[in-house]
Amino acid sequence: MKIGMIGLGKMGGNMRQRLARAGHEVVGFDLDESLRDVGSLPELVEALDAPRIVWVMVPHGEPTRRTVEELGELLEEGDLVIEGGNSKFTEDAELDAILSAKGIGYLDCGVSGGIWGLENGYGLMCGGRAEHVEMAMPIFDALRPEGPREEGFVHAGDVGAGHYAKMVHNGIEYGLMHAYAEGYELLAAKDIVKDVQGCFQAWSRGTVVRSWLLDLAVKALDETPGLEGISEYTTDSGEGRWTLEEGIEMAVPMPVLAAALFARFASRQENSPAMQMVAALRGQFGGHAVKM
Amino acid sequence: MKIGMIGLGKMGGNMRQRLARAGHEVVGFDLDESLRDVGSLPELVEALDAPRIVWVMVPHGEPTRRTVEELGELLEEGDLVIEGGNSKFTEDAELDAILSAKGIGYLDCGVSGGIWGLENGYGLMCGGRAEHVEMAMPIFDALRPEGPREEGFVHAGDVGAGHYAKMVHNGIEYGLMHAYAEGYELLAAKDIVKDVQGCFQAWSRGTVVRSWLLDLAVKALDETPGLEGISEYTTDSGEGRWTLEEGIEMAVPMPVLAAALFARFASRQENSPAMQMVAALRGQFGGHAVKM
Amino acid sequence: MKIGMIGLGKMGGNMRQRLARAGHEVVGFDLDESLRDVGSLPELVEALDAPRIVWVMVPHGEPTRRTVEELGELLEEGDLVIEGGNSKFTEDAELDAILSAKGIGYLDCGVSGGIWGLENGYGLMCGGRAEHVEMAMPIFDALRPEGPREEGFVHAGDVGAGHYAKMVHNGIEYGLMHAYAEGYELLAAKDIVKDVQGCFQAWSRGTVVRSWLLDLAVKALDETPGLEGISEYTTDSGEGRWTLEEGIEMAVPMPVLAAALFARFASRQENSPAMQMVAALRGQFGGHAVKM
Amino acid sequence: MKIGMIGLGKMGGNMRQRLARAGHEVVGFDLDESLRDVGSLPELVEALDAPRIVWVMVPHGEPTRRTVEELGELLEEGDLVIEGGNSKFTEDAELDAILSAKGIGYLDCGVSGGIWGLENGYGLMCGGRAEHVEMAMPIFDALRPEGPREEGFVHAGDVGAGHYAKMVHNGIEYGLMHAYAEGYELLAAKDIVKDVQGCFQAWSRGTVVRSWLLDLAVKALDETPGLEGISEYTTDSGEGRWTLEEGIEMAVPMPVLAAALFARFASRQENSPAMQMVAALRGQFGGHAVKM
Repeated sequence: MKIGMIGLGKMGGNMRQRLARAGHEVVGFDLDESLRDVGSLPELVEALDAPRIVWVMVPHGEPTRRTVEELGELLEEGDLVIEGGNSKFTEDAELDAILSAKGIGYLDCGVSGGIWGLENGYGLMCGGRAEHVEMAMPIFDALRPEGPREEGFVHAGDVGAGHYAKMVHNGIEYGLMHAYAEGYELLAAKDIVKDVQGCFQAWSRGTVVRSWLLDLAVKALDETPGLEGISEYTTDSGEGRWTLEEGIEMAVPMPVLAAALFARFASRQENSPAMQMVAALRGQFGGHAVKM
Repeated sequence: MKIGMIGLGKMGGNMRQRLARAGHEVVGFDLDESLRDVGSLPELVEALDAPRIVWVMVPHGEPTRRTVEELGELLEEGDLVIEGGNSKFTEDAELDAILSAKGIGYLDCGVSGGIWGLENGYGLMCGGRAEHVEMAMPIFDALRPEGPREEGFVHAGDVGAGHYAKMVHNGIEYGLMHAYAEGYELLAAKDIVKDVQGCFQAWSRGTVVRSWLLDLAVKALDETPGLEGISEYTTDSGEGRWTLEEGIEMAVPMPVLAAALFARFASRQENSPAMQMVAALRGQFGGHAVKM
Repeated sequence: MKIGMIGLGKMGGNMRQRLARAGHEVVGFDLDESLRDVGSLPELVEALDAPRIVWVMVPHGEPTRRTVEELGELLEEGDLVIEGGNSKFTEDAELDAILSAKGIGYLDCGVSGGIWGLENGYGLMCGGRAEHVEMAMPIFDALRPEGPREEGFVHAGDVGAGHYAKMVHNGIEYGLMHAYAEGYELLAAKDIVKDVQGCFQAWSRGTVVRSWLLDLAVKALDETPGLEGISEYTTDSGEGRWTLEEGIEMAVPMPVLAAALFARFASRQENSPAMQMVAALRGQFGGHAVKM
Repeated sequence: MKIGMIGLGKMGGNMRQRLARAGHEVVGFDLDESLRDVGSLPELVEALDAPRIVWVMVPHGEPTRRTVEELGELLEEGDLVIEGGNSKFTEDAELDAILSAKGIGYLDCGVSGGIWGLENGYGLMCGGRAEHVEMAMPIFDALRPEGPREEGFVHAGDVGAGHYAKMVHNGIEYGLMHAYAEGYELLAAKDIVKDVQGCFQAWSRGTVVRSWLLDLAVKALDETPGLEGISEYTTDSGEGRWTLEEGIEMAVPMPVLAAALFARFASRQENSPAMQMVAALRGQFGGHAVKM
């Protein structure tokens, strides 16, 4: 199958490779001239045969919107755009509207797997209409991990459902990581425990907490014993915030996600204003010394 | 009324003053010779008339236990010991057992009010038997704030209930302080808000959040504009931990208290091991740069 | 002073009364004919003398927007609109833009005090330009509690800052209420504590946790001993959610507010889907019985 | 190798089987006559050859203590007791003291794997002295999953460290389960998502959140679509509470674990007293209707 791919960065580039390995022909465009196969979107569209499939993998927000708008001008009825970037699910309906006005199909596809996806395959969560999903299935089958399709791919629901599922996936990820992290800190704090890394590694098989993230924790502890020198400073990439906002919107209690997200916020503060206030209040009523 | 008081530090010393102002005669003992009226516990007991009342105000744990044991040797049937320090409620039953074996009464009394108690009076929460409460009521009436007795004093229940109520009071205090602190941080972070202190002050009357702690926050912001130079470093004094432990024991969800307590723990960490692990995990799966 | 007031419901009606008591003349309009002084907005505007001040106190969102738009048509340069309802701070900039295009002033004013405001006065938080604040000061002085102005009124900052401060105020309120609530539950669960209401009441004076909310808790326990028959079901009115969303936006950790908000969400669930999943998982790995 | 096993319930019975499959001879004792090989502990000890190894797998607390005390009377210098039940790590030092006074070795061993351990092997975390660990290694090798030893077994540290690591493991487990549960609830609440189970299943390979618990969630959703009819009611078995108590003791913030534990507490409440108080407070200040 022949497919256009816009955005050939860390993720897009690896996906192009995985598609190529599976025998698909990828026509790639990127702002970086050294990465691309064609010099412009019109050239890319021209290089494909109708009905065309174009996978968009550019930064979310304005870049994605502009790309989709331009594709709306260039593509024809019956073609299909797959937004595989990190768009917020609320944006998918708008992008779909731009395209469906011209009879062009739209799918949103959440992609998980990070830098490991090239070898392991990517977990795919897709939203949109069934006929569009069917049309793109050879692409999905090439990108997803080997094994049963349903263990690496889902048609999650209507337009937006793919990015929604990916967003929730990332929210869960925040919680899982922090659960391991709390356990790590407690083990590391205890004098009678002499082999923290060994404990994590011993959980790799047979225990209830075994997981890929656990394997990565073992690997991290192996590469950096005691995590010596690693800063607590941790960024957050949007999906965690969106998930919590959705929890608020849908009145779903999300204390675990909230805790994980807040801990990241706090990790970036030198001197918490909230705790300055608590310290000041203690000084006021108790005469407790306040550190300056 | 004549009363013995053991422990004349910041709290005990102020309470002695307030009792004296109310016309009670206080015979005080302290390890610090410059503070005390008598040189030993036997002298203190001798200076009182039966039935004697002795208020114990020394550090909790061993010092309190040793004091009560010694009083058990010195006092007589019908006398009364009031443990007004910060004993954990579980210790009260043990202290009571030491004394009641000899017919000596025991009351536990949680005391709130900090350095302001001398002028404002102390909030008192008492546990023990009704006849002992009645016996000590002139003391309680002198220590508590003016106004209706029930607004500054409670006979909360059996032995231990006074310290339990004080413990819960402090747990609530942790939560209240952190609620104001979160609001402070959010106001201070917002560009359109130009007068954070003014907002807090404007809440002093008429609003739902008005309280004594709010007044102290206004005072703190007045004394240290922007809380400039105050460290986030905040200690915790035991009652917050005990309250959370009781929540666990009684299967009472206490997310607000837990959050307030954990924030204090975190305020004392230079580099959170848990967040080091989260940062390391992100580096592992996403190729995200890890700060060293 | 003469002022127009649009919206004479529970809040607006009380505010009209308080203004009238202070000697101001209020021309009121409401959809409810039995409450209003004039039959339409044009009549209301006509009844006022330039420069006019109109206080808007209608439901936030569409009703407020339509009202402000209509006032934009009716009022003249130099007049002033005060939005005293529950608009989100983000809406204030839009409302201001509608009016300032015609030279009409705009202030946003958060109002706290609930049903008690009529007697106690309202805590007022105002956002906008200094000259508009000055113009409306007699109104603010009448509405706020007696005593120093700065203890019941603040010019918090630019347009939107008034509603922002009120939003944060409500977020704090959520946290404060839940802190007391956790303490209440723990006290009520403990066998040695015999007088839970008495404990709350004894905190009324002299203690660190004394506050108006505490007084209300005492009143509630007095009116409904043991809170017998009161449902846990608790709604939330928007400001709590907005505050948490702002915390997310500004990367301010708000664990206490989040906990309080999530507890409200949970109070409205018959059977938590999340806990169904936890129960199901336990059944899967541990052979633990799952309740159906 | 010949080993004694005391306690042949769900866990102990399966472990006996797994040991037998590996060629070890197990002499079992249980209060249930239908399960046991010998009729008493003296008979069990007699049936073993010195140096004896006895694995204790009875309920923690008193039953475990009495069993160890009796073994202290029956065994000889050089023998070894392995406490493989759910003892709290603080109890291990006491049990060790009983035995080491007589020259009998003691190991504590946390065992994870639930009902799946018979087939998959058990994750083992062991605390104690190196020579005792070496002595029992054939037993550990038979019980743990196949593959590298360090991926299913760890000598975690001193006496108590095995149970400590298992306790932390369970604490992490609470957090992981709740992270998935929150994500599940959010997906299930969203109208555009049509295939919640499909989403979970699609995460099975290639994604960051893949894990054994995820596989179990898929299985649960497969067996009980929509978790229809499953109650939210969830018990907790002690280790979660202990982990949080240790977090408090060690001043380690554990917001994720706390949230997961509190949600279990709440799942067992019909009408949350804390939320009754919040509802009552709202009624007091806002005139909000209170549901009865």
